[in-house]
Amino acid sequence: FLRSEVGALHVSELGDLLEAINTAQRQELVRLLGDDFDFAALTEVDEAIRLEIADAMPNAKIAEALGELESDDAVYILEDLEEEDQLEILAQLPFTERIRLRRALDYPEDTAGRRMQTEFVAVPPFWTVGQTIDYMRDEEELPGSFAQIFVVDPTFKLVGSVNLDRILRTKRMVRIEEIMDDPRSPITAEMDQEEAAQIFEQYDLLSAAVVDDNKRLVGVLTIDDVVDVINEEAEEDIKRLGGVGDEELSDRVITTVRSRFTWLLINLATAILASAVIALFDATISEMVALAVLMPIVASMGGNAGTQTMTVTVRALATRDIDIYNAGRVIRREAAVGLINGVLFAVIIGVVAALWFSNPGLGGIIAAAMVINMLAAALAGILLPLLLDKIGADPAIASAVFVTTVTDVVGFFAFLGLAGWWLSSLA
Amino acid sequence: FLRSEVGALHVSELGDLLEAINTAQRQELVRLLGDDFDFAALTEVDEAIRLEIADAMPNAKIAEALGELESDDAVYILEDLEEEDQLEILAQLPFTERIRLRRALDYPEDTAGRRMQTEFVAVPPFWTVGQTIDYMRDEEELPGSFAQIFVVDPTFKLVGSVNLDRILRTKRMVRIEEIMDDPRSPITAEMDQEEAAQIFEQYDLLSAAVVDDNKRLVGVLTIDDVVDVINEEAEEDIKRLGGVGDEELSDRVITTVRSRFTWLLINLATAILASAVIALFDATISEMVALAVLMPIVASMGGNAGTQTMTVTVRALATRDIDIYNAGRVIRREAAVGLINGVLFAVIIGVVAALWFSNPGLGGIIAAAMVINMLAAALAGILLPLLLDKIGADPAIASAVFVTTVTDVVGFFAFLGLAGWWLSSLA
Ligand SMILES: [Mg+2]
Ligand SMILES: [Mg+2]
Ligand SMILES: [Mg+2]
Ligand SMILES: [Mg+2]
Ligand SMILES: [Mg+2]
Ligand SMILES: [Mg+2]
Ligand SMILES: [Mg+2]
Ligand SMILES: [Mg+2]
Ligand SMILES: [Mg+2]
Ligand SMILES: [Mg+2]
Ligand SMILES: [Mg+2]
Ligand SMILES: [Mg+2]
Ligand SMILES: [Mg+2]
Repeated sequence: FLRSEVGALHVSELGDLLEAINTAQRQELVRLLGDDFDFAALTEVDEAIRLEIADAMPNAKIAEALGELESDDAVYILEDLEEEDQLEILAQLPFTERIRLRRALDYPEDTAGRRMQTEFVAVPPFWTVGQTIDYMRDEEELPGSFAQIFVVDPTFKLVGSVNLDRILRTKRMVRIEEIMDDPRSPITAEMDQEEAAQIFEQYDLLSAAVVDDNKRLVGVLTIDDVVDVINEEAEEDIKRLGGVGDEELSDRVITTVRSRFTWLLINLATAILASAVIALFDATISEMVALAVLMPIVASMGGNAGTQTMTVTVRALATRDIDIYNAGRVIRREAAVGLINGVLFAVIIGVVAALWFSNPGLGGIIAAAMVINMLAAALAGILLPLLLDKIGADPAIASAVFVTTVTDVVGFFAFLGLAGWWLSSLA
Repeated sequence: FLRSEVGALHVSELGDLLEAINTAQRQELVRLLGDDFDFAALTEVDEAIRLEIADAMPNAKIAEALGELESDDAVYILEDLEEEDQLEILAQLPFTERIRLRRALDYPEDTAGRRMQTEFVAVPPFWTVGQTIDYMRDEEELPGSFAQIFVVDPTFKLVGSVNLDRILRTKRMVRIEEIMDDPRSPITAEMDQEEAAQIFEQYDLLSAAVVDDNKRLVGVLTIDDVVDVINEEAEEDIKRLGGVGDEELSDRVITTVRSRFTWLLINLATAILASAVIALFDATISEMVALAVLMPIVASMGGNAGTQTMTVTVRALATRDIDIYNAGRVIRREAAVGLINGVLFAVIIGVVAALWFSNPGLGGIIAAAMVINMLAAALAGILLPLLLDKIGADPAIASAVFVTTVTDVVGFFAFLGLAGWWLSSLA
């Protein structure tokens, strides 16, 4: 009963089911399903759950199951296992399977070579459409599904590709080379998966050939896996901007505590730095407590304005909308926005502070500090991500903490410094 | 010369080119290209640029150009134009074209009906594979490219779909109904595009039928446009979390200033609220200025911890990883993480503060305030987005400001309140 119910599920639904139940239930479900358990479901669950299920299973059984998957799914599961288990599983696979997976695993993580599948249809350019269709009707060993076939020369160099709809609307006697598309901007196996995804988006591809250094066809990247890459990369950026690393909802509490601890510790250090700036002016504050009341406003507005600019910049870097040609223009634009909003909010907060504490001078001081901090926020928000990107760091991961450090320090320094100078000039 | 150079570009490259040059150059380029200008490039540029180019062109010319596009691209360009221009352009289109676009435009914005194309291949279930292939070879009016054909009954009700690779590997005499897939979880025209994108991801689709209320086939949604939707939605979430609305890099400075102003104004209001909390304790602060030095640390740590939890929650809501079944478990989990990290950082900051000001009592006060604020941060970080989602608001747009308001207010209140009580009990 269970088998027929669960068997009717799509693998991604089975994956969702595995994520929804607890560890004991998962082990029980996998055990009950036995050989009917589709390993492809493991590509649809969080890493923690994937490892948990794989660890509870003998390597011989994993090897047998992986042999039935498409190579990209097998690699996806294998790559997270421990080196030792990987080797043992690979050793138990048939020769050709082993070579295929080995090759993909040899490419670095997050490259097109890791995400490609090695099952594809390739034909010589001199075949006719009719020959090609007959071949596909007779051949048993075709990939599970495909949208495109590839054209290769005798050395397996890629010479073109043909979409299936093109084949279907062409007469049988036409030769493949007459209807094939030239390989435009080919995806190399070493290419970062994010760059490959950009190419899919740009040219609206359904699948694309992956070639090695000698332009030989080694695999095919398909849009469904590229969609996963796009989602992963967007998720990565959102989480990094929010100060959480690679955590997943199914991580254990202690794993989450540890991953967030690091970020909070860095933030603590910068918060103490900001406090040290305040401590420089403790005499000024004891002279006028209103300064302590107002100072968080200057810092907070700077922090938010800086975060706005930083968010736009990080996103523009991710989508390749910012480059060296327009960086100058964008920087000037952000500085202008910061300055204009700085002046507007300086007027508002200046009036509010002057009325609140019946002290026009205090209003003037906070207004001046606001303009300075909003300009600093805009510059930090755009320059820090650009700088991080330039030195090869991920702008999403570190920008937030640096930007708010700048706005806190500049905000407190400008406000309390100006106030100290003003109070001493009054005396 | 220009025509041949630019003509060789893919429309998305032409789009990138249009975004890279300035307004005068854009007008000049479009003018020079004349009838060779491919309107599909307008679907690849920012809205501001799309409107700029369209506004500079007579409606008759736009109508002519739109007639040559696929319906989804035509709708994408039309939907942003002013109502008046829309009507004028529609009036100049041939009858069938006009009906198709009108129908798509009648569906609400951001629905599957708006994003679908109305060009597709549909055949009856009793046709054979051979008949179908012959039809595709002879028919002139096929969509530009397609990965799937649809099977409909005489009333145009959707009864199934067949991927092209399936057709190619099947013998000519087999009937379509024998190889077609059942329409699983159909996409309705009124469905939100984000939900439709989820279905594509879940089932790894290349294209999918869009049906109306009577289950009749009205269009097809293709993966390349779904990829655009996924990117738009991720971008929307990132920007909303960062406090920037729908701004684009090519907006004018004044547009950007205005869109960010609103968000900063809301932030100003909440910052003043936090200041009012501090003002409650001005007597306490003038008694001990060290409180003013330390108070931003408590608020800042809470703000960051709250942002972490909120980021994870907003993302989990977007990917449908959180639902009513696991919400309780996730809330307990976040509270535990907040409490554990709260205790850890309470110890650290307690020791630092005690040593810095040679005052163990002060260390104890800030430690207690830290635990309280970190727990408040965790609860606010998870409960506020869930609540916003429940009442139908977008959790990405408003969570950030509410969460940091909670952590600022609780942080200042807990720290200064405890300190006030402690100082008065000392006296
Ligand atoms: Mg999932
Ligand atoms: Mg992985
Ligand atoms: Mg990456
Ligand atoms: Mg595209
Ligand atoms: Mg795959
Ligand atoms: Mg997959
Ligand atoms: Mg990235
Ligand atoms: Mg639009
Ligand atoms: Mg939406
Ligand atoms: Mg998928
Ligand atoms: Mg389209
Ligand atoms: Mg498109
Ligand atoms: Mg959304």
